[in-house]
Amino acid sequence: MNLVSGILAPGAPGDLLLAQAADAGPQHNLDIVWTIIAACMVMFMQVGFAMLESGFTRAKNAVNIIMKNLMDFGVGSIAFFFVGFGLMFGATNGFCGTTHFGFAGLDGRDEHYTFLLFQTVFAATAATIVSGAVAERVKFQAYLAYSFVITIFIYPVFGSWAWGSLLDGAGWLERLSTGTFCDFAGSTVVHSIGGWLALAAAIVAGPRLGKYGPDRKPRAIPGHNIPLAALGVFILWFGWFGFNAGSTTAGVPAIGRIAVMTNLSAAAGAVAAMVTIWAITKKPDASMTMNGALAGLVGITAGCATVTPMGAMAIGACAGVLVVGSVFVVDAILKIDDPVGAVSVHGVCGAWGTLACGLFNAESVVGGQAHSTGLLYGGGFAQLASQAAGAGMAFVWAFGLGMALFLAVHKTIGLRVSAIEERRGLDIGEHGMEAYSGFQIFITE
Amino acid sequence: MNLVSGILAPGAPGDLLLAQAADAGPQHNLDIVWTIIAACMVMFMQVGFAMLESGFTRAKNAVNIIMKNLMDFGVGSIAFFFVGFGLMFGATNGFCGTTHFGFAGLDGRDEHYTFLLFQTVFAATAATIVSGAVAERVKFQAYLAYSFVITIFIYPVFGSWAWGSLLDGAGWLERLSTGTFCDFAGSTVVHSIGGWLALAAAIVAGPRLGKYGPDRKPRAIPGHNIPLAALGVFILWFGWFGFNAGSTTAGVPAIGRIAVMTNLSAAAGAVAAMVTIWAITKKPDASMTMNGALAGLVGITAGCATVTPMGAMAIGACAGVLVVGSVFVVDAILKIDDPVGAVSVHGVCGAWGTLACGLFNAESVVGGQAHSTGLLYGGGFAQLASQAAGAGMAFVWAFGLGMALFLAVHKTIGLRVSAIEERRGLDIGEHGMEAYSGFQIFITE
Amino acid sequence: MNLVSGILAPGAPGDLLLAQAADAGPQHNLDIVWTIIAACMVMFMQVGFAMLESGFTRAKNAVNIIMKNLMDFGVGSIAFFFVGFGLMFGATNGFCGTTHFGFAGLDGRDEHYTFLLFQTVFAATAATIVSGAVAERVKFQAYLAYSFVITIFIYPVFGSWAWGSLLDGAGWLERLSTGTFCDFAGSTVVHSIGGWLALAAAIVAGPRLGKYGPDRKPRAIPGHNIPLAALGVFILWFGWFGFNAGSTTAGVPAIGRIAVMTNLSAAAGAVAAMVTIWAITKKPDASMTMNGALAGLVGITAGCATVTPMGAMAIGACAGVLVVGSVFVVDAILKIDDPVGAVSVHGVCGAWGTLACGLFNAESVVGGQAHSTGLLYGGGFAQLASQAAGAGMAFVWAFGLGMALFLAVHKTIGLRVSAIEERRGLDIGEHGMEAYSGFQIFITE
Repeated sequence: MNLVSGILAPGAPGDLLLAQAADAGPQHNLDIVWTIIAACMVMFMQVGFAMLESGFTRAKNAVNIIMKNLMDFGVGSIAFFFVGFGLMFGATNGFCGTTHFGFAGLDGRDEHYTFLLFQTVFAATAATIVSGAVAERVKFQAYLAYSFVITIFIYPVFGSWAWGSLLDGAGWLERLSTGTFCDFAGSTVVHSIGGWLALAAAIVAGPRLGKYGPDRKPRAIPGHNIPLAALGVFILWFGWFGFNAGSTTAGVPAIGRIAVMTNLSAAAGAVAAMVTIWAITKKPDASMTMNGALAGLVGITAGCATVTPMGAMAIGACAGVLVVGSVFVVDAILKIDDPVGAVSVHGVCGAWGTLACGLFNAESVVGGQAHSTGLLYGGGFAQLASQAAGAGMAFVWAFGLGMALFLAVHKTIGLRVSAIEERRGLDIGEHGMEAYSGFQIFITE
Repeated sequence: MNLVSGILAPGAPGDLLLAQAADAGPQHNLDIVWTIIAACMVMFMQVGFAMLESGFTRAKNAVNIIMKNLMDFGVGSIAFFFVGFGLMFGATNGFCGTTHFGFAGLDGRDEHYTFLLFQTVFAATAATIVSGAVAERVKFQAYLAYSFVITIFIYPVFGSWAWGSLLDGAGWLERLSTGTFCDFAGSTVVHSIGGWLALAAAIVAGPRLGKYGPDRKPRAIPGHNIPLAALGVFILWFGWFGFNAGSTTAGVPAIGRIAVMTNLSAAAGAVAAMVTIWAITKKPDASMTMNGALAGLVGITAGCATVTPMGAMAIGACAGVLVVGSVFVVDAILKIDDPVGAVSVHGVCGAWGTLACGLFNAESVVGGQAHSTGLLYGGGFAQLASQAAGAGMAFVWAFGLGMALFLAVHKTIGLRVSAIEERRGLDIGEHGMEAYSGFQIFITE
Repeated sequence: MNLVSGILAPGAPGDLLLAQAADAGPQHNLDIVWTIIAACMVMFMQVGFAMLESGFTRAKNAVNIIMKNLMDFGVGSIAFFFVGFGLMFGATNGFCGTTHFGFAGLDGRDEHYTFLLFQTVFAATAATIVSGAVAERVKFQAYLAYSFVITIFIYPVFGSWAWGSLLDGAGWLERLSTGTFCDFAGSTVVHSIGGWLALAAAIVAGPRLGKYGPDRKPRAIPGHNIPLAALGVFILWFGWFGFNAGSTTAGVPAIGRIAVMTNLSAAAGAVAAMVTIWAITKKPDASMTMNGALAGLVGITAGCATVTPMGAMAIGACAGVLVVGSVFVVDAILKIDDPVGAVSVHGVCGAWGTLACGLFNAESVVGGQAHSTGLLYGGGFAQLASQAAGAGMAFVWAFGLGMALFLAVHKTIGLRVSAIEERRGLDIGEHGMEAYSGFQIFITE
């Protein structure tokens, strides 16, 4: 983090917001104001996901998806307050944090609340990624159960390994002999963790009825409201400025640079995905283009504070191509039904963005440090090794625990609604209501 | 207000933003930046209400509802500038403010404009609450008329009693012998006032055609666009961070704490309402869950700066249960047709949140004060008495004047559209257009 | 710009954000935080335009419009980074900037990135205005081509004339003998340029099939989703606070004043347009009212920092009346098919707002300057002459180059889709997908 500000004293807590607390002057207050606003923007991403996911699926399941997105935030906010925050940022036992449960010992200083809010909306982002991958077929009750487990255990424990030292923890990924694992705003910690959980969930849940024909060929199931999905994408793009630039948790000049990198990568991702799908199918598909923008955003999240504009555009463009290929592989080769492409956008492009730090990190150019760690800037392979370690560990942890979790839910509560309910739509079956009462809608399997 | 900052000099105006004006340094500028951003977020709540209310009603009336929400803000911004602001914050004659009409005497200092904008969007919030309760049956012209009266008289006069001293006024609710009436961001001043006006409006307007059958049993009239309503709820949740944390009108560390309390209460409200309706109807109804989140937000608005996290969750959870019960009572017992639940969310939960300050205020814990005023923190009954006085007076004032106002409109302009127009929809009748041209929609009574 | 802050040293770059860079203290950081947040709000206006334009047109073209809005931002962000920014703000050759292409020479200081982001989202706003005027009939590929040219050449060159000195340039409109051309946030630079380009585009593209009957009378083609359009209008209103108040690029008290003027003008525009159309057609039309709000926002953009509240309301009210008249003239007299009224809102009201500075500028009242330049405040005709020069030149430049550009595209790529494709909708033809899969929609010509 000192890369960004250049002013963090040695030995201080890793987080600028908290380190500067002794100084109760305007800069400290500015750090708080900026972080709160960024947190609000990240919170707003929740409705971006809700609109995106409901728009990309069928009208008969729209209420269900919205309820999932609303309640993983509702349940998650409370669960993270009591348990997740302590596991992630408490004094560590070597594996995870062990203090600050229920915010114990922190309520005396108001800056800690700011930090809590920012971390809460991050946790909620990781949890909500799963809802898209299991859309249109999973029980609401099962969703609540595993979303709860993700927020109180799977996300924060991994988070403690990468970001624990921001408060009282000390994560092993921060102390690798090859150099600190670089994931500034969470390509891995938030997005890959969410994406690999989504992969496990989609595998265990199985495909939607009718998704694969008797010939095992995938069938497209078009979304019901593309303007709503587009609204979601734009909201996510907007909120991502808070996500990335807010991760300074300090009102410092670097936030402008980080925001520019974020925007350039998103733009490059959208353009690259559009060109790729246009070349393949002869049409500039809107869904794929939107996912390209999100792929660029996920990809730049790890390196947004440490790469140059050219690096940002390279990361975004590669993510845009990658997401098109990955969606094809997941859908047609692996035969895994991921209705909104969550695995490709968040899992695959999160891993790419994390590795990309090992290629493109240019601290001597952008951050005033003595040398750069990116391979392409003469930094050798050490950073790349750290990045591979973190990204690989995220897959093992999230996919492994995810499989165990979803199988456990499958065996107990049951993961999937009945075939009759799935055909009618989960809105009627699970919630007793329709999303679009009064509209003539054709219910397709 | 000194509770929050701890730095306000005795004798200074109550508002930190204005008090610090002598210091034209970075902190003063930060106060302005934060307050402007918060004001923008509150202004954004207008579209949250518009989406919520149109989504929860029928497609044939969507244009009408949107026009009401747009124009109460348009008309209200101008009316509050010329009249409302002076009544609320001008030097008082004992009953209300009498100076600063048309911003007279304030235009020399730029910080006053910031304060004006923040107060304008608050006034607009109070006015717009009514539109949901009278949806689908009230004349547009009548709506404009009474919305105008609310903004220039009913809201600001009550506001002067509770918040007048923020500038040049001195409200009697601020000088109660039992202690200052505590309503930090407006559970009563904004939400209950709006909610009790909504109650009066719904009574005078009467139920929609077909709402109550020949057996006097209520019939559910489902909303036409639940994703739109959900968008509205999320926007309101987002904007509420500006509403509550922005009410410091200062960029101080307390804003993080206030934002956390706001979020925890909203989350608890959503969870509690969902569990309650799930237990009753065996389905987690989305409308009720969303109203639960809003109930939690309304409830915490009074005490967001003075309660602990546990208090915030308790307030939110009670609000979530309360809103379910209140909707049932209003709808089925009192036979008052409130299409979006505005009376229950804003009126009832606003009153609850106001009273809750008398139970949960914990200034010695969260604000560094010598003692707490909440009953549960050993503060005795004095604060609770002040809270009851303010909440009770709000009901008398808003419901009483509301009944007079709506009856007057009913006798003059006429409050209700014709039965034919109501059946066809107000969009055609009042505005000569459809909300969803080209879509097949079934018009139900 | 010194009007606003009163603290800018003579000889310093025109932009406060950059001028204060030597001071790396809290005020400088606050300037950056405020400008970044404002930039995010302006970026969010992109989805405002997307929702507005798709809502006001037919369901069969909704995907196409959204793709245009998404991709002009995606392509534009990259194109402006490499070319446009240098043309607009580089050291000038008398005609336009010639340095800083690809951000060369600026990447050493983080405040430059903040400035870049703010200018990028402004450029994107100008480009996206065209998409509404050519909706429902223009090839996606052609749109990408000319949107690219607008962002890399037409917009930035004009921008350099009015705003070049914010960095290293020196525009001739800033050095008029009659006084500096006043366009604080871009009524002309952004909105009129966009609007006149839209006019040229609509002329060359020609009207939609069925828009004018055999009798040459215009036929109304109603929009398919008014709530979506309303969402867009509210988002634009919200984002405009960033657009106008953010144009200080400094966290100073004036932002509150600017935000109030913005709001009052928008409110007056909405009210005036509603009253006007109500008087003419006997119905308060929602589309026209919404365009009235936007007209007020466009109108106040030039003078938001230099007029009084009464001036702001006068500008907005005139804009609201003007937009109704202009839509009628464009549609029924000139027979130009502009589906969303972009020419009237952005072109006409942008010119009006620019001229209005010559009438209403009241710097001695609001900015502490020695005298006012507005005619109505005793400033004589000099400022009005400068305003007319700038507004007139914008028309010549944008409309002239626009005609050449669109004719060139028409002769090469081809501007318009086939009649068959237009009838079926561009979503199927251009993108191979539907916006509302599963809904029963009646396709009208």
